[in-house]
Amino acid sequence: MQKIISLSKRRGFIFQSSEIYGGVEALWDFGPLGTLLKNNIKLEWIKRFIQEEESVVLIDGTVLMHPKVWSASGHVTNFNDFLVECKKCHSRFRADFIADGYFVGKGKAEKKNQCPQCGGKDFTSPRQFNLMFKTFLGPIEDKAHTTYLRPETAQSMFTNFKLVQESMRLKLPFGIAQVGRAFRNEITTGNFIFRTREFEIAEIEYFVAPEEDEKYFNIWLEKWEKFFLDLGIKKEKLRRYEHPKENLAHYSKRTVDIEYKFPFGWSELAGVANRTDYDLKRHSQFSGQDLSYFDEEKKKKYFPYVIEPTMGLERVILAVLCDAYQEISGGRTKTTRPTKELEVLLKLDKKIAPIKVAILPLVKNKTELVKKAKEVYEILKPYFTCQYDELGSIGRRYRRLDEIGVPFAITIDFETLKKDDVTVRDRDTMQQERIKIENLVNFLKEKLEN
Amino acid sequence: MQKIISLSKRRGFIFQSSEIYGGVEALWDFGPLGTLLKNNIKLEWIKRFIQEEESVVLIDGTVLMHPKVWSASGHVTNFNDFLVECKKCHSRFRADFIADGYFVGKGKAEKKNQCPQCGGKDFTSPRQFNLMFKTFLGPIEDKAHTTYLRPETAQSMFTNFKLVQESMRLKLPFGIAQVGRAFRNEITTGNFIFRTREFEIAEIEYFVAPEEDEKYFNIWLEKWEKFFLDLGIKKEKLRRYEHPKENLAHYSKRTVDIEYKFPFGWSELAGVANRTDYDLKRHSQFSGQDLSYFDEEKKKKYFPYVIEPTMGLERVILAVLCDAYQEISGGRTKTTRPTKELEVLLKLDKKIAPIKVAILPLVKNKTELVKKAKEVYEILKPYFTCQYDELGSIGRRYRRLDEIGVPFAITIDFETLKKDDVTVRDRDTMQQERIKIENLVNFLKEKLEN
Repeated sequence: MQKIISLSKRRGFIFQSSEIYGGVEALWDFGPLGTLLKNNIKLEWIKRFIQEEESVVLIDGTVLMHPKVWSASGHVTNFNDFLVECKKCHSRFRADFIADGYFVGKGKAEKKNQCPQCGGKDFTSPRQFNLMFKTFLGPIEDKAHTTYLRPETAQSMFTNFKLVQESMRLKLPFGIAQVGRAFRNEITTGNFIFRTREFEIAEIEYFVAPEEDEKYFNIWLEKWEKFFLDLGIKKEKLRRYEHPKENLAHYSKRTVDIEYKFPFGWSELAGVANRTDYDLKRHSQFSGQDLSYFDEEKKKKYFPYVIEPTMGLERVILAVLCDAYQEISGGRTKTTRPTKELEVLLKLDKKIAPIKVAILPLVKNKTELVKKAKEVYEILKPYFTCQYDELGSIGRRYRRLDEIGVPFAITIDFETLKKDDVTVRDRDTMQQERIKIENLVNFLKEKLEN
Repeated sequence: MQKIISLSKRRGFIFQSSEIYGGVEALWDFGPLGTLLKNNIKLEWIKRFIQEEESVVLIDGTVLMHPKVWSASGHVTNFNDFLVECKKCHSRFRADFIADGYFVGKGKAEKKNQCPQCGGKDFTSPRQFNLMFKTFLGPIEDKAHTTYLRPETAQSMFTNFKLVQESMRLKLPFGIAQVGRAFRNEITTGNFIFRTREFEIAEIEYFVAPEEDEKYFNIWLEKWEKFFLDLGIKKEKLRRYEHPKENLAHYSKRTVDIEYKFPFGWSELAGVANRTDYDLKRHSQFSGQDLSYFDEEKKKKYFPYVIEPTMGLERVILAVLCDAYQEISGGRTKTTRPTKELEVLLKLDKKIAPIKVAILPLVKNKTELVKKAKEVYEILKPYFTCQYDELGSIGRRYRRLDEIGVPFAITIDFETLKKDDVTVRDRDTMQQERIKIENLVNFLKEKLEN
């Protein structure tokens, strides 16, 4: 894990947010390569689940919503951790109470029965602390103007259910999808980008007739798993975890997690939940609006059931990075002077690799080579995310490219100047082919799209 | 304007956030077509300014940052409106003071000298109200744990300046770009999505040697304008507005707005600012980190100047919608029974149109036609965002498609069953061509990519 974190920082995938100020716990910024990787995963997701699914549409709702949304959803009441307060200095701590009355203070995994601030030993009974970030709409900071940053994106799909269904003339079954940010004021954070306070969710609320819930639950579970396999994640690193009935969330009839074997153990990567008609009914009740659906075939009105396949984008990115990371000793790269250093290969699937093609003049001190390489760069950049790189030996540049998972590297050498062809190196096979410059775009398109 | 708002709601472009709860002022959700439109604009922006600009990289920072960021940026001190408080009932209002001591209360454009809550006439002196949304990191709601939702995205580019520059080995001039959400607790809101409390900014912080600031200012101003023209916005609806020296923001040496002629008048669509070395210097000072740049050619260290081209995505979307909206009387669509209703044509540029291709069986009660149409839909959907539509007469369907700006409509008729070709209707020319199904993907690719 430490290697992934270090690579992520060194090569511009992921940085700690506000690092120059010492950082903020559990907030991470995506650097240039991380942003490209994230965007590629989003685009694959949108292509597969919206563009290619006739019955799913995409929306983009606000993070700030009407406060009643969170009463209706149950988050104001149920989305809590426990806190205790020191009776002496009034400091407050998260209380994961254990049998003997000790508590684990402030995210640290040590037992304490004294206040970490003042040494006091007398605490209030534990009380609930809501995990939603609070803020105020307008200048007045009172209860009437309090709202929250959304802790999940699903509620926009419920509040917009009718507007979307009517404007798009949709019939059951259909889905409303969203990729967007959510915020949770977590006290227990950690494992790099696995549990953060600000993250992106990609999810679908798929509305079905109540009697078809189990059928679509299974369909979506399989589609969801297939997505991860098609991103190149190894099958043996994925498994299902069926939540026992007694541990289900208040709205759920059934939940299955898709777990990935992270370096810190099997943990939730994504999941599918059967939210039943809980949310639509609650919003009908709290808003006074009728959010039921009129089924024209059955000639009756009812509240659809909701199957919710969901994934955390940061977790997908972490899984993809862990899965692609390889270390090769003894010098993978063919160079005249093979290195004895450990070489890193980030074997990202071509579809999501941040940089698709690198363009390398053989040496940087020959004007003709540099000029030709820049010409090739200009030809390719409208079609692919490219990187021009002239610094260091070719072997060293190949190693740098392997480390960030660039599928194809193009070298412009003296032969190029005579024959107008270039060497294309394939990251995975390390084979090199000579390709005419005029055929390069089509050659790469074919390689990258299959 | 009312027509744009109504079309946006009716056809799934834009809905008021939390509408079932009466909505929240100045918060808008993007519906299915609005989301596709927004994503297409983002993708065009990213392609042009990141993929095709060798010297610009994209990052994706968090909304929540370390509170010191906002002290260093000057937002804690300077990002204010004025408020007054009624001495009798302690209600607080925004005070846009006018000469005679009256104030405009709570966003309403009427003069008041009485408290709108209790009728009181005695007010405190106006004091500053910060426009950043406040929240608390962790469970303790005190000053030490207060932070803000970012009111602009630029600060991530400054706090990550060194990390990005080093990990990507960048040399001046280079840019760090971001497309992301920002939040402002505006009191004066309105004009649909023109001024909202939550919005998306697409901007670049372009770092240059101090003596090159004016040169790059002009280069970016031209690139920015060209982007809008290439989105199909009419040239005569765009103009520049040079901010007078005395009105510049505290960090700015020069600011030029690009204004669009909205239905409510000329207003800011985008802008370019010369932020000088203000931000990097302030963050160096507040963080104690050295954010200067070592220029290898000049062999000296200095703080780069920053040219900031920026645009509000919601404003771009509003401009694009206003610009594309046309009403045609007398029946534009060729049908057997021409309608006398006003027909709406949304002449969106093909690059950004939310739905690219519609697939229409001539009638829906002929199984073979429906089956064939579904086959065509399956062939096209991996390549284009498509819509299958079988409801209503062909003329009526064409009108619906024109209203949401679908560039191409494909009709499957009885000829199709014999000859395996279809009619392709061009939204703009209304010309119809017969195209073989096997050539359809290439035909449409060519039309849509040029």
